[in-house]
Amino acid sequence: MERINSKQNQRIKIVKKLTTAKGRKQQHQYLLESWHLVQAALVALPATDIVMIYATDDQYLEHGAALTDQPVTLISEAVAQELGDTQTPQGIFLVCKLPGAVSTIVPKGAWLLLDHVQDPGNIGTMVRTADAAGFRGVVFGTGTANPYHSKVLRAMQGSQFHLQVVQQALPTVIKQFQEHQVPIYGTELNPAAVNYRTISPQTDFALIMGNEGNGMDQALLQQTTNNLYIPIQGHAESLNVAIAAAVIMFRITAH
Amino acid sequence: MERINSKQNQRIKIVKKLTTAKGRKQQHQYLLESWHLVQAALVALPATDIVMIYATDDQYLEHGAALTDQPVTLISEAVAQELGDTQTPQGIFLVCKLPGAVSTIVPKGAWLLLDHVQDPGNIGTMVRTADAAGFRGVVFGTGTANPYHSKVLRAMQGSQFHLQVVQQALPTVIKQFQEHQVPIYGTELNPAAVNYRTISPQTDFALIMGNEGNGMDQALLQQTTNNLYIPIQGHAESLNVAIAAAVIMFRITAH
Repeated sequence: MERINSKQNQRIKIVKKLTTAKGRKQQHQYLLESWHLVQAALVALPATDIVMIYATDDQYLEHGAALTDQPVTLISEAVAQELGDTQTPQGIFLVCKLPGAVSTIVPKGAWLLLDHVQDPGNIGTMVRTADAAGFRGVVFGTGTANPYHSKVLRAMQGSQFHLQVVQQALPTVIKQFQEHQVPIYGTELNPAAVNYRTISPQTDFALIMGNEGNGMDQALLQQTTNNLYIPIQGHAESLNVAIAAAVIMFRITAH
Repeated sequence: MERINSKQNQRIKIVKKLTTAKGRKQQHQYLLESWHLVQAALVALPATDIVMIYATDDQYLEHGAALTDQPVTLISEAVAQELGDTQTPQGIFLVCKLPGAVSTIVPKGAWLLLDHVQDPGNIGTMVRTADAAGFRGVVFGTGTANPYHSKVLRAMQGSQFHLQVVQQALPTVIKQFQEHQVPIYGTELNPAAVNYRTISPQTDFALIMGNEGNGMDQALLQQTTNNLYIPIQGHAESLNVAIAAAVIMFRITAH
Protein backbone atom coordinates (compact mmCIF):
# COMPACT_ATOMS: atom_id res chain seq x y z
CA MET A 1 0.00 0.00 0.00
CA GLU A 2 1.38 3.38 -0.90
CA ARG A 3 2.25 5.85 1.86
CA ILE A 4 2.67 9.63 1.66
CA ASN A 5 4.38 11.41 4.53
CA SER A 6 5.02 14.85 3.11
CA LYS A 7 2.46 17.52 2.50
CA GLN A 8 4.76 18.73 -0.27
CA ASN A 9 4.03 15.54 -2.18
CA GLN A 10 2.75 16.30 -5.69
CA ARG A 11 -0.34 14.11 -5.37
CA ILE A 12 -1.31 15.74 -2.07
CA LYS A 13 -0.97 19.15 -3.68
CA ILE A 14 -3.41 18.04 -6.37
CA VAL A 15 -5.87 16.59 -3.83
CA LYS A 16 -5.61 19.80 -1.78
CA LYS A 17 -6.85 21.70 -4.83
CA LEU A 18 -10.18 19.89 -4.44
CA THR A 19 -10.87 22.20 -1.48
CA THR A 20 -11.43 24.96 -4.06
CA ALA A 21 -14.29 25.27 -6.55
CA LYS A 22 -11.77 25.74 -9.36
CA GLY A 23 -9.85 22.59 -8.42
CA ARG A 24 -13.03 20.52 -8.26
CA LYS A 25 -14.12 21.76 -11.67
CA GLN A 26 -10.73 21.08 -13.27
CA GLN A 27 -10.38 17.58 -11.85
CA HIS A 28 -14.11 16.80 -11.90
CA GLN A 29 -13.75 15.29 -8.42
CA TYR A 30 -14.46 16.28 -4.83
CA LEU A 31 -13.05 15.52 -1.40
CA LEU A 32 -15.00 14.04 1.52
CA GLU A 33 -13.66 14.09 5.08
CA SER A 34 -14.45 11.96 8.18
CA TRP A 35 -15.34 8.30 8.52
CA HIS A 36 -19.05 9.04 8.64
CA LEU A 37 -19.00 10.61 5.18
CA VAL A 38 -16.50 8.13 3.73
CA GLN A 39 -18.78 5.32 4.85
CA ALA A 40 -21.82 7.00 3.28
CA ALA A 41 -19.89 7.29 0.00
CA LEU A 42 -18.80 3.63 0.09
CA VAL A 43 -22.42 2.54 0.55
CA ALA A 44 -23.80 4.83 -2.12
CA LEU A 45 -21.25 5.07 -4.91
CA PRO A 46 -20.33 2.56 -7.61
CA ALA A 47 -16.67 1.48 -7.42
CA THR A 48 -15.90 3.40 -10.60
CA ASP A 49 -16.75 6.69 -8.85
CA ILE A 50 -14.34 6.17 -5.96
CA VAL A 51 -10.95 7.54 -6.90
CA MET A 52 -8.91 7.12 -3.70
CA ILE A 53 -9.20 6.89 0.08
CA TYR A 54 -6.52 8.60 2.16
CA ALA A 55 -6.17 7.36 5.74
CA THR A 56 -3.76 7.86 8.61
CA ASP A 57 -2.40 4.70 10.28
CA ASP A 58 -4.82 5.17 13.18
CA GLN A 59 -7.83 5.46 10.89
CA TYR A 60 -6.69 2.52 8.77
CA LEU A 61 -6.27 0.37 11.87
CA GLU A 62 -9.78 1.30 12.94
CA HIS A 63 -11.59 0.99 9.61
CA GLY A 64 -9.31 -1.19 7.46
CA ALA A 65 -11.71 -4.14 7.58
CA ALA A 66 -14.32 -2.06 5.77
CA LEU A 67 -11.77 -0.94 3.18
CA THR A 68 -10.66 -4.20 1.60
CA ASP A 69 -11.03 -3.98 -2.22
CA GLN A 70 -10.88 -0.18 -1.94
CA PRO A 71 -8.01 1.95 -3.24
CA VAL A 72 -6.23 3.22 -0.12
CA THR A 73 -3.18 5.43 0.36
CA LEU A 74 -1.77 5.83 3.86
CA ILE A 75 -0.92 9.36 4.96
CA SER A 76 0.89 10.98 7.88
CA GLU A 77 -0.83 13.18 10.45
CA ALA A 78 0.84 16.17 8.77
CA VAL A 79 -0.77 15.33 5.46
CA ALA A 80 -4.14 14.82 7.20
CA GLN A 81 -3.73 18.26 8.75
CA GLU A 82 -3.01 19.68 5.29
CA LEU A 83 -6.10 18.16 3.68
CA GLY A 84 -8.46 18.57 6.64
CA ASP A 85 -10.97 21.33 7.06
CA THR A 86 -10.95 21.31 10.88
CA GLN A 87 -8.27 21.99 13.47
CA THR A 88 -8.09 18.34 14.43
CA PRO A 89 -9.01 16.29 11.36
CA GLN A 90 -10.09 12.70 11.97
CA GLY A 91 -7.57 11.58 9.34
CA ILE A 92 -9.69 9.85 6.72
CA PHE A 93 -10.64 11.26 3.32
CA LEU A 94 -12.21 10.05 0.11
CA VAL A 95 -11.85 11.48 -3.36
CA CYS A 96 -14.78 10.70 -5.65
CA LYS A 97 -16.06 11.78 -9.03
CA LEU A 98 -18.38 14.74 -9.28
CA PRO A 99 -21.78 13.70 -10.63
CA GLY A 100 -22.43 14.72 -14.24
CA ALA A 101 -24.17 18.03 -14.84
CA VAL A 102 -27.96 17.80 -15.12
CA SER A 103 -29.26 19.81 -18.05
CA THR A 104 -33.00 19.18 -17.68
CA ILE A 105 -34.86 18.50 -14.46
CA VAL A 106 -37.80 16.13 -14.53
CA PRO A 107 -40.37 18.13 -12.55
CA LYS A 108 -41.83 15.17 -10.65
CA GLY A 109 -41.74 14.80 -6.88
CA ALA A 110 -40.81 17.54 -4.42
CA TRP A 111 -37.90 19.86 -5.16
CA LEU A 112 -36.13 22.44 -3.03
CA LEU A 113 -34.71 25.45 -4.91
CA LEU A 114 -32.05 27.60 -3.22
CA ASP A 115 -31.84 31.25 -4.23
CA HIS A 116 -28.64 32.98 -3.08
CA VAL A 117 -28.46 31.03 0.19
CA GLN A 118 -25.03 31.69 1.60
CA ASP A 119 -24.26 29.87 4.83
CA PRO A 120 -22.79 26.43 4.07
CA GLY A 121 -24.19 24.98 7.31
CA ASN A 122 -27.71 26.19 6.48
CA ILE A 123 -27.44 24.80 2.95
CA GLY A 124 -26.15 21.40 4.01
CA THR A 125 -28.82 21.15 6.71
CA MET A 126 -31.53 21.96 4.16
CA VAL A 127 -30.33 19.21 1.81
CA ARG A 128 -30.26 16.71 4.72
CA THR A 129 -33.78 17.81 5.74
CA ALA A 130 -35.06 17.60 2.15
CA ASP A 131 -33.69 14.05 2.02
CA ALA A 132 -35.48 13.12 5.26
CA ALA A 133 -38.70 14.69 3.96
CA GLY A 134 -38.52 12.53 0.85
CA PHE A 135 -37.64 15.27 -1.65
CA ARG A 136 -36.47 14.30 -5.13
CA GLY A 137 -33.78 16.93 -5.45
CA VAL A 138 -32.25 20.27 -4.50
CA VAL A 139 -31.31 22.95 -7.02
CA PHE A 140 -28.42 25.24 -6.10
CA GLY A 141 -29.26 28.46 -7.92
CA THR A 142 -26.84 31.24 -8.80
CA GLY A 143 -25.23 32.85 -5.75
CA THR A 144 -25.79 29.81 -3.53
CA ALA A 145 -22.68 28.28 -1.93
CA ASN A 146 -21.15 25.33 -3.77
CA PRO A 147 -22.62 21.88 -2.89
CA TYR A 148 -19.15 20.35 -2.66
CA HIS A 149 -17.70 22.90 -0.24
CA SER A 150 -16.39 21.05 2.84
CA LYS A 151 -18.80 22.76 5.25
CA VAL A 152 -21.80 22.01 3.03
CA LEU A 153 -20.69 18.38 2.73
CA ARG A 154 -20.35 18.10 6.50
CA ALA A 155 -23.86 19.42 7.13
CA MET A 156 -25.39 17.31 4.31
CA GLN A 157 -24.21 14.14 6.09
CA GLY A 158 -24.15 12.21 2.82
CA SER A 159 -27.60 13.27 1.61
CA GLN A 160 -26.10 14.27 -1.75
CA PHE A 161 -26.02 10.52 -2.44
CA HIS A 162 -29.74 10.13 -1.78
CA LEU A 163 -31.30 12.89 -3.84
CA GLN A 164 -30.38 14.85 -6.95
CA VAL A 165 -28.12 17.83 -6.37
CA VAL A 166 -28.29 20.19 -9.33
CA GLN A 167 -26.52 23.49 -9.99
CA GLN A 168 -28.61 25.57 -12.34
CA ALA A 169 -29.99 29.10 -12.70
CA LEU A 170 -33.42 29.21 -11.05
CA PRO A 171 -35.30 31.03 -13.86
CA THR A 172 -34.49 28.08 -16.17
CA VAL A 173 -35.65 25.56 -13.56
CA ILE A 174 -38.83 27.49 -12.79
CA LYS A 175 -39.67 27.44 -16.50
CA GLN A 176 -39.38 23.64 -16.53
CA PHE A 177 -41.83 23.36 -13.63
CA GLN A 178 -44.21 25.88 -15.21
CA GLU A 179 -44.26 23.98 -18.50
CA HIS A 180 -45.49 20.92 -16.63
CA GLN A 181 -48.03 22.90 -14.57
CA VAL A 182 -46.27 21.91 -11.37
CA PRO A 183 -46.82 24.46 -8.56
CA ILE A 184 -43.87 26.58 -7.43
CA TYR A 185 -43.97 28.05 -3.93
CA GLY A 186 -41.81 31.01 -3.05
CA THR A 187 -41.25 32.13 0.54
CA GLU A 188 -41.21 35.60 2.02
CA LEU A 189 -41.20 37.27 5.40
CA ASN A 190 -44.41 39.08 4.62
CA PRO A 191 -47.61 38.60 6.62
CA ALA A 192 -49.58 39.48 3.47
CA ALA A 193 -48.29 36.32 1.77
CA VAL A 194 -50.10 32.96 1.95
CA ASN A 195 -50.01 31.16 5.33
CA TYR A 196 -48.07 27.95 4.65
CA ARG A 197 -50.61 25.98 6.70
CA THR A 198 -53.31 26.60 4.09
CA ILE A 199 -51.40 24.65 1.40
CA SER A 200 -52.57 21.03 1.11
CA PRO A 201 -49.95 18.31 1.26
CA GLN A 202 -48.95 17.33 -2.28
CA THR A 203 -46.44 15.22 -4.18
CA ASP A 204 -45.18 17.35 -7.09
CA PHE A 205 -44.01 20.88 -6.32
CA ALA A 206 -41.02 23.18 -6.00
CA LEU A 207 -40.27 25.21 -2.88
CA ILE A 208 -37.87 28.19 -3.11
CA MET A 209 -35.88 29.44 -0.11
CA GLY A 210 -34.05 32.77 -0.32
CA ASN A 211 -31.02 34.54 1.08
CA GLU A 212 -30.58 34.68 4.87
CA GLY A 213 -30.62 38.46 5.06
CA ASN A 214 -32.49 39.61 1.98
CA GLY A 215 -34.89 36.78 1.26
CA MET A 216 -35.82 35.72 -2.26
CA ASP A 217 -35.05 37.68 -5.36
CA GLN A 218 -37.96 40.04 -6.20
CA ALA A 219 -38.11 38.92 -9.83
CA LEU A 220 -38.41 35.27 -8.78
CA LEU A 221 -41.23 36.10 -6.35
CA GLN A 222 -43.26 37.23 -9.39
CA GLN A 223 -42.87 33.88 -11.14
CA THR A 224 -44.24 31.60 -8.44
CA THR A 225 -47.68 30.00 -8.05
CA ASN A 226 -47.91 31.32 -4.46
CA ASN A 227 -45.56 32.88 -1.97
CA LEU A 228 -45.73 31.36 1.49
CA TYR A 229 -45.25 32.85 4.91
CA ILE A 230 -44.80 31.27 8.35
CA PRO A 231 -46.68 33.38 10.91
CA ILE A 232 -44.38 34.37 13.80
CA GLN A 233 -46.25 33.99 17.09
CA GLY A 234 -43.73 35.27 19.60
CA HIS A 235 -41.43 38.26 19.42
CA ALA A 236 -38.73 36.70 17.29
CA GLU A 237 -38.06 38.72 14.17
CA SER A 238 -37.66 35.75 11.88
CA LEU A 239 -36.68 32.11 11.65
CA ASN A 240 -33.35 30.70 10.57
CA VAL A 241 -33.68 29.81 6.85
CA ALA A 242 -33.00 26.09 7.40
CA ILE A 243 -35.64 26.01 10.15
CA ALA A 244 -38.21 27.77 7.96
CA ALA A 245 -37.46 25.37 5.10
CA ALA A 246 -37.93 22.36 7.41
CA VAL A 247 -41.24 23.57 8.81
CA ILE A 248 -42.66 24.11 5.31
CA MET A 249 -41.15 20.97 3.74
CA PHE A 250 -42.58 18.67 6.40
CA ARG A 251 -45.94 20.44 6.26
CA ILE A 252 -46.64 20.46 2.54
CA THR A 253 -45.15 17.13 1.49
CA ALA A 254 -47.68 14.33 1.09
CA HIS A 255 -46.59 11.00 2.52
CA MET B 1 -17.15 59.59 28.52
CA GLU B 2 -14.62 57.14 29.83
CA ARG B 3 -12.22 55.47 27.41
CA ILE B 4 -10.19 52.27 27.86
CA ASN B 5 -7.36 51.60 25.47
CA SER B 6 -5.54 48.72 27.12
CA LYS B 7 -6.71 45.15 27.34
CA GLN B 8 -4.69 44.94 30.57
CA ASN B 9 -7.13 47.37 32.16
CA GLN B 10 -8.61 45.95 35.36
CA ARG B 11 -12.21 46.55 34.35
CA ILE B 12 -11.69 44.85 31.00
CA LYS B 13 -10.19 41.87 32.79
CA ILE B 14 -13.34 41.63 34.88
CA VAL B 15 -15.64 41.96 31.84
CA LYS B 16 -13.58 39.32 30.02
CA LYS B 17 -14.41 36.90 32.86
CA LEU B 18 -18.05 37.06 31.72
CA THR B 19 -17.04 34.85 28.80
CA THR B 20 -16.81 31.99 31.34
CA ALA B 21 -19.66 30.31 33.23
CA LYS B 22 -17.80 30.89 36.51
CA GLY B 23 -17.35 34.60 35.82
CA ARG B 24 -21.02 35.03 34.94
CA LYS B 25 -22.08 33.28 38.12
CA GLN B 26 -19.75 35.32 40.33
CA GLN B 27 -20.72 38.67 38.84
CA HIS B 28 -24.33 37.70 38.11
CA GLN B 29 -24.01 39.39 34.73
CA TYR B 30 -23.47 38.36 31.11
CA LEU B 31 -21.93 39.83 28.00
CA LEU B 32 -23.69 40.44 24.69
CA GLU B 33 -21.82 41.15 21.47
CA SER B 34 -22.82 42.86 18.18
CA TRP B 35 -25.17 45.75 17.51
CA HIS B 36 -28.05 43.44 16.68
CA LEU B 37 -28.00 41.89 20.16
CA VAL B 38 -27.19 45.15 21.97
CA GLN B 39 -30.21 46.70 20.29
CA ALA B 40 -32.44 43.78 21.30
CA ALA B 41 -31.27 44.22 24.91
CA LEU B 42 -31.94 47.97 24.86
CA VAL B 43 -35.49 47.36 23.64
CA ALA B 44 -36.21 44.56 26.10
CA LEU B 45 -34.42 45.35 29.34
CA PRO B 46 -35.27 47.88 32.06
CA ALA B 47 -32.51 50.48 32.52
CA THR B 48 -31.61 48.94 35.90
CA ASP B 49 -30.55 45.70 34.15
CA ILE B 50 -28.12 47.39 31.78
CA VAL B 51 -24.73 47.64 33.43
CA MET B 52 -22.50 49.06 30.69
CA ILE B 53 -22.10 49.35 26.92
CA TYR B 54 -18.59 49.11 25.50
CA ALA B 55 -18.13 50.54 22.01
CA THR B 56 -15.24 51.31 19.69
CA ASP B 57 -15.13 54.80 18.18
CA ASP B 58 -16.48 53.46 14.89
CA GLN B 59 -19.42 51.76 16.55
CA TYR B 60 -20.15 54.79 18.71
CA LEU B 61 -20.12 57.04 15.66
CA GLU B 62 -22.56 54.69 13.95
CA HIS B 63 -24.94 54.01 16.86
CA GLY B 64 -24.33 56.88 19.30
CA ALA B 65 -27.70 58.45 18.57
CA ALA B 66 -29.44 55.34 19.92
CA LEU B 67 -27.22 55.33 23.00
CA THR B 68 -28.02 58.67 24.64
CA ASP B 69 -29.01 58.13 28.30
CA GLN B 70 -27.12 54.82 28.24
CA PRO B 71 -23.92 54.12 30.18
CA VAL B 72 -21.18 53.93 27.53
CA THR B 73 -17.44 53.34 27.78
CA LEU B 74 -15.34 53.78 24.64
CA ILE B 75 -12.81 51.06 23.90
CA SER B 76 -9.93 50.59 21.48
CA GLU B 77 -9.95 47.97 18.71
CA ALA B 78 -7.48 45.96 20.81
CA VAL B 79 -9.93 45.83 23.72
CA ALA B 80 -12.75 44.86 21.32
CA GLN B 81 -10.55 42.05 20.05
CA GLU B 82 -9.96 40.92 23.63
CA LEU B 83 -13.67 40.82 24.52
CA GLY B 84 -14.96 39.56 21.18
CA ASP B 85 -15.85 36.00 20.40
CA THR B 86 -15.10 36.19 16.68
CA GLN B 87 -11.94 36.91 14.68
CA THR B 88 -13.22 40.30 13.62
CA PRO B 89 -15.53 41.58 16.34
CA GLN B 90 -17.94 44.33 15.38
CA GLY B 91 -16.76 46.34 18.38
CA ILE B 92 -19.90 46.81 20.45
CA PHE B 93 -20.77 44.95 23.67
CA LEU B 94 -23.32 45.19 26.43
CA VAL B 95 -23.05 43.89 29.98
CA CYS B 96 -26.40 43.16 31.61
CA LYS B 97 -27.71 41.46 34.72
CA LEU B 98 -28.47 37.76 34.62
CA PRO B 99 -32.17 37.13 35.23
CA GLY B 100 -33.00 35.76 38.68
CA ALA B 101 -33.16 31.99 39.10
CA VAL B 102 -36.63 30.49 38.58
CA SER B 103 -37.44 27.96 41.30
CA THR B 104 -40.91 26.89 40.16
CA ILE B 105 -42.20 26.83 36.62
CA VAL B 106 -45.83 27.65 35.99
CA PRO B 107 -46.80 24.81 33.63
CA LYS B 108 -49.01 26.88 31.35
CA GLY B 109 -48.36 27.44 27.66
CA ALA B 110 -45.85 25.52 25.57
CA TRP B 111 -42.41 24.71 26.98
CA LEU B 112 -39.30 23.30 25.35
CA LEU B 113 -37.09 21.15 27.62
CA LEU B 114 -33.48 20.49 26.58
CA ASP B 115 -31.87 17.27 27.78
CA HIS B 116 -28.06 17.21 27.36
CA VAL B 117 -28.14 19.18 24.11
CA GLN B 118 -24.57 20.20 23.43
CA ASP B 119 -24.09 22.31 20.35
CA PRO B 120 -24.48 26.01 21.21
CA GLY B 121 -25.71 26.82 17.70
CA ASN B 122 -28.42 24.14 17.87
CA ILE B 123 -29.48 25.34 21.32
CA GLY B 124 -29.67 28.99 20.37
CA THR B 125 -31.57 28.16 17.20
CA MET B 126 -34.08 26.11 19.22
CA VAL B 127 -34.73 29.01 21.61
CA ARG B 128 -35.22 31.38 18.66
CA THR B 129 -37.58 28.90 17.01
CA ALA B 130 -39.51 28.34 20.27
CA ASP B 131 -39.92 32.12 20.50
CA ALA B 132 -41.26 32.31 16.94
CA ALA B 133 -43.63 29.41 17.64
CA GLY B 134 -45.05 31.28 20.64
CA PHE B 135 -43.54 29.11 23.38
CA ARG B 136 -43.63 30.33 26.99
CA GLY B 137 -40.17 29.14 27.94
CA VAL B 138 -37.17 26.90 27.45
CA VAL B 139 -35.65 24.80 30.23
CA PHE B 140 -31.92 24.09 30.01
CA GLY B 141 -31.57 20.74 31.78
CA THR B 142 -28.40 19.29 33.24
CA GLY B 143 -25.68 18.71 30.65
CA THR B 144 -27.09 21.29 28.22
CA ALA B 145 -24.74 24.11 27.21
CA ASN B 146 -25.08 27.35 29.16
CA PRO B 147 -27.73 29.81 27.85
CA TYR B 148 -25.33 32.74 28.24
CA HIS B 149 -22.45 31.20 26.27
CA SER B 150 -21.53 33.61 23.44
CA LYS B 151 -22.39 31.12 20.67
CA VAL B 152 -25.80 30.35 22.23
CA LEU B 153 -26.50 34.07 22.57
CA ARG B 154 -25.59 34.66 18.94
CA ALA B 155 -27.95 31.93 17.69
CA MET B 156 -30.78 33.01 20.05
CA GLN B 157 -30.81 36.46 18.38
CA GLY B 158 -32.24 38.04 21.52
CA SER B 159 -35.04 35.51 22.07
CA GLN B 160 -33.94 35.12 25.71
CA PHE B 161 -35.66 38.48 26.23
CA HIS B 162 -38.96 37.20 24.82
CA LEU B 163 -39.49 33.93 26.66
CA GLN B 164 -38.43 32.45 29.99
CA VAL B 165 -35.01 30.82 29.99
CA VAL B 166 -34.70 28.49 32.97
CA GLN B 167 -31.79 26.31 34.10
CA GLN B 168 -33.15 23.39 36.10
CA ALA B 169 -32.87 19.61 36.35
CA LEU B 170 -35.48 18.06 34.05
CA PRO B 171 -36.87 15.46 36.53
CA THR B 172 -37.93 18.37 38.80
CA VAL B 173 -39.56 20.22 35.91
CA ILE B 174 -41.32 17.11 34.62
CA LYS B 175 -42.81 16.60 38.08
CA GLN B 176 -44.24 20.13 38.01
CA PHE B 177 -45.94 19.43 34.68
CA GLN B 178 -47.20 16.05 35.85
CA GLU B 179 -48.74 17.56 38.98
CA HIS B 180 -50.82 19.85 36.76
CA GLN B 181 -51.73 17.02 34.34
CA VAL B 182 -50.03 18.86 31.51
CA PRO B 183 -48.81 16.47 28.76
CA ILE B 184 -45.08 15.94 28.33
CA TYR B 185 -43.82 14.75 24.95
CA GLY B 186 -40.46 13.10 24.64
CA THR B 187 -38.76 12.53 21.29
CA GLU B 188 -36.89 9.52 20.02
CA LEU B 189 -35.47 8.18 16.78
CA ASN B 190 -37.62 5.09 17.01
CA PRO B 191 -40.24 4.20 14.39
CA ALA B 192 -42.18 2.38 17.13
CA ALA B 193 -42.80 5.70 18.92
CA VAL B 194 -45.84 7.90 18.22
CA ASN B 195 -45.90 9.70 14.85
CA TYR B 196 -45.77 13.41 15.75
CA ARG B 197 -48.47 14.13 13.15
CA THR B 198 -51.05 12.25 15.20
CA ILE B 199 -50.79 14.71 18.13
CA SER B 200 -53.49 17.40 18.00
CA PRO B 201 -52.38 21.02 18.25
CA GLN B 202 -52.63 22.19 21.87
CA THR B 203 -51.75 25.10 24.11
CA ASP B 204 -50.25 23.62 27.31
CA PHE B 205 -47.53 21.01 26.95
CA ALA B 206 -43.82 20.31 27.33
CA LEU B 207 -41.64 18.98 24.52
CA ILE B 208 -38.28 17.38 25.36
CA MET B 209 -35.40 17.28 22.87
CA GLY B 210 -32.36 15.11 23.59
CA ASN B 211 -28.66 14.96 22.91
CA GLU B 212 -27.46 15.21 19.27
CA GLY B 213 -25.78 11.82 19.26
CA ASN B 214 -27.49 9.79 21.96
CA GLY B 215 -30.99 11.22 22.06
CA MET B 216 -32.97 11.60 25.26
CA ASP B 217 -32.02 10.02 28.55
CA GLN B 218 -33.68 6.59 28.91
CA ALA B 219 -35.02 7.35 32.40
CA LEU B 220 -36.71 10.53 31.13
CA LEU B 221 -38.32 8.66 28.23
CA GLN B 222 -40.19 6.59 30.87
CA GLN B 223 -41.68 9.68 32.50
CA THR B 224 -43.37 11.24 29.48
CA THR B 225 -47.00 11.15 28.35
CA ASN B 226 -45.91 10.04 24.85
CA ASN B 227 -42.68 9.82 22.95
CA LEU B 228 -42.82 11.27 19.46
CA TYR B 229 -41.09 10.29 16.26
CA ILE B 230 -40.70 12.08 12.92
CA PRO B 231 -40.90 9.48 10.14
CA ILE B 232 -37.90 9.75 7.83
CA GLN B 233 -39.06 9.38 4.21
CA GLY B 234 -35.79 9.49 2.32
CA HIS B 235 -32.49 7.82 3.07
CA ALA B 236 -31.22 10.33 5.61
CA GLU B 237 -30.36 8.67 8.92
CA SER B 238 -31.77 11.41 11.09
CA LEU B 239 -32.60 15.09 11.32
CA ASN B 240 -30.53 17.80 12.98
CA VAL B 241 -31.94 18.27 16.51
CA ALA B 242 -32.90 21.92 15.93
CA ILE B 243 -34.70 20.94 12.71
CA ALA B 244 -36.59 18.12 14.44
CA ALA B 245 -37.56 20.47 17.27
CA ALA B 246 -38.86 23.05 14.78
CA VAL B 247 -40.95 20.56 12.81
CA ILE B 248 -42.63 19.28 15.99
CA MET B 249 -43.01 22.69 17.67
CA PHE B 250 -44.77 24.23 14.68
CA ARG B 251 -46.95 21.14 14.23
CA ILE B 252 -48.29 20.63 17.75
CA THR B 253 -48.66 24.23 18.91
CA ALA B 254 -52.20 25.58 18.66
CA HIS B 255 -52.44 29.12 17.26
